[in-house]
Amino acid sequence: MKYTYFTPGPAELYPTFAAHLQTAMDEQLGSISHRSARFRDIYRHTDEQLRALMNIPATHGIFFTGSASEVWERLLLNCVEHESFHLVNGSFSRKCYDYAQALHKFAHLHEKPLGEGFDAAEVEIPEYAELVCLTHNETSAGVQMRPTDMHKLKRKYAQKLFCVDMVSSAPYPDLDFSLIDSAYFSVQKAFGMPAGLGVWIANQACLEKAERLQRYDSLTIGAHHNLPTLWKNYQTFETPATPNVLGIYLLGKIAEDLNRIGIETVRKETEEKARMLYRFAEGSDRYTPFVQQERHRSQTVVVLNTDGPAKGVMEAAKQQGMIIGSGYGKLKETQIRIANFPAVSVEQVSELIKVMQK
Amino acid sequence: MKYTYFTPGPAELYPTFAAHLQTAMDEQLGSISHRSARFRDIYRHTDEQLRALMNIPATHGIFFTGSASEVWERLLLNCVEHESFHLVNGSFSRKCYDYAQALHKFAHLHEKPLGEGFDAAEVEIPEYAELVCLTHNETSAGVQMRPTDMHKLKRKYAQKLFCVDMVSSAPYPDLDFSLIDSAYFSVQKAFGMPAGLGVWIANQACLEKAERLQRYDSLTIGAHHNLPTLWKNYQTFETPATPNVLGIYLLGKIAEDLNRIGIETVRKETEEKARMLYRFAEGSDRYTPFVQQERHRSQTVVVLNTDGPAKGVMEAAKQQGMIIGSGYGKLKETQIRIANFPAVSVEQVSELIKVMQK
Repeated sequence: MKYTYFTPGPAELYPTFAAHLQTAMDEQLGSISHRSARFRDIYRHTDEQLRALMNIPATHGIFFTGSASEVWERLLLNCVEHESFHLVNGSFSRKCYDYAQALHKFAHLHEKPLGEGFDAAEVEIPEYAELVCLTHNETSAGVQMRPTDMHKLKRKYAQKLFCVDMVSSAPYPDLDFSLIDSAYFSVQKAFGMPAGLGVWIANQACLEKAERLQRYDSLTIGAHHNLPTLWKNYQTFETPATPNVLGIYLLGKIAEDLNRIGIETVRKETEEKARMLYRFAEGSDRYTPFVQQERHRSQTVVVLNTDGPAKGVMEAAKQQGMIIGSGYGKLKETQIRIANFPAVSVEQVSELIKVMQK
Repeated sequence: MKYTYFTPGPAELYPTFAAHLQTAMDEQLGSISHRSARFRDIYRHTDEQLRALMNIPATHGIFFTGSASEVWERLLLNCVEHESFHLVNGSFSRKCYDYAQALHKFAHLHEKPLGEGFDAAEVEIPEYAELVCLTHNETSAGVQMRPTDMHKLKRKYAQKLFCVDMVSSAPYPDLDFSLIDSAYFSVQKAFGMPAGLGVWIANQACLEKAERLQRYDSLTIGAHHNLPTLWKNYQTFETPATPNVLGIYLLGKIAEDLNRIGIETVRKETEEKARMLYRFAEGSDRYTPFVQQERHRSQTVVVLNTDGPAKGVMEAAKQQGMIIGSGYGKLKETQIRIANFPAVSVEQVSELIKVMQK
């Protein structure tokens, strides 16, 4: 049976994925050298398409890693000498904080319970924090932080580096990269690709910080995928080590497809599908949206409390050919998570709602 | 035009690759959760097949990273408090040494010119070196170190951790994992897969070292893919972060294919094809093997000096549908590198030799 995956990543593959993969195989892209002109063209194309899609200016470079989790480490090693600051309201924002501690950074924490979100006005950032880690979409709880709040915070704390985790929402959030120094995502979420590639966007301010830290004997910015090395190779659209060439090619192709649709349309469709799901839950006596505040409700990962055992809902959906995500961790029993990525259409979301009604 | 890639990685895809990829797409493996039973079965299968193929005992775990280059960093962070020791005779063995320095380890160096190899008898390892980094196959120069020499060294320095770079030779070298503490490779070489997955084999001695270092405030073993976290997840065939699920599946399938052929046959064929290439060069007045000592000649990456410009040979081969590798770095003008991986058959090597004769 062929399923439709409404899981928050790995997720449903983008409808054009299989055709692009076939082209890549026909063109033997799995065998080409990562030091060839052909690869540099692929990197350049993906770079151009992502810039167009997400409005990334020339001040920022676009780099590839093995995963977004790897970026947590690269970012903390390269942009923090002593202190970082983290808004934490779920498992993934917490993992970034945990990484900072494992790397012996002094990590400041502003934490809220699962399901609650952050507004700019309530956030106080300690004086010596060098890097501010924000999460646009906390995948575990389905909570978003609005870009306008992120931008406000950066204006208030202009001297600090601001980084946005957009792992399970890119390219949806409309970030102003004249304010956001760094952002990152992985491809198995809203880009509808198999896992195995992380994307790290970082500006010259991040690079300068990394170059400064690199001169210190007292700490290391890492040897693999450190920012100065990534940046240097990026000047000729190369990578320090052999990257996931196929993944970079496929990402460029899917970004091109999304550009053809237009990012505004992609965003509107995302909001339309999210509205359908939240409205359905609000009008139902068997589901309720987990996140109370409407402004904090994620547009890309919809988390609902279930009246009965979540497992029953998931099983029923599966029998109809739809895989929905379980609640995260301890909330497995009483929650479901529905990914609302560009790979699933308004019609497919309607179908899912019909099945959930039964 | 469909080419045969004799490049030392990325390289020719293994003949069964496309069929396995199709199965993976049909089974929607690009969308499955890395926390699902299905993924754990995939990890278990790949683990079993690699163990059978490379004779890896239960004392060693098998972990996945984004690349083999990433493993250099993980290994040095997790297994070295102060000092490492490196046998260097080319660009890749040197990169590991460079990584050690970037991580502020005190890295001891025993270096030889490109094209020369190491024997056990000539190697003196400093007293305080904790980790010994050996390269089975130096891809840049086509030089191998024989496993028997590696085993001898370990017997002499039994208290030190021994690690083998088998990036461009695995599963060819017959390592005795009762002596070798750790080894690593990437999949775009002899396993005939697209790049984007590294494999790290490490034993309990490595784990114990990492656990000890993890308790120190004065250094970090890294936050992402550190050995204790990899090992903990490995107990249930999981990974700390979302891995390259598709790559792990495909690696297991190709390892299974190689097991069906039998590792002894794979090794014999490799040696047969290498013998054909070296004999041809020795009998030719236009090519000479770069590596003088027969015992140091790589079985998996054959490097030849060309009489005329290497570019001419490469162009002529390309017109016949064969892509051969250029010499590494400055040797681009006067050398060619021919990958001799299981993906190319005796017949294909014969064809290549015919073309090179012209």
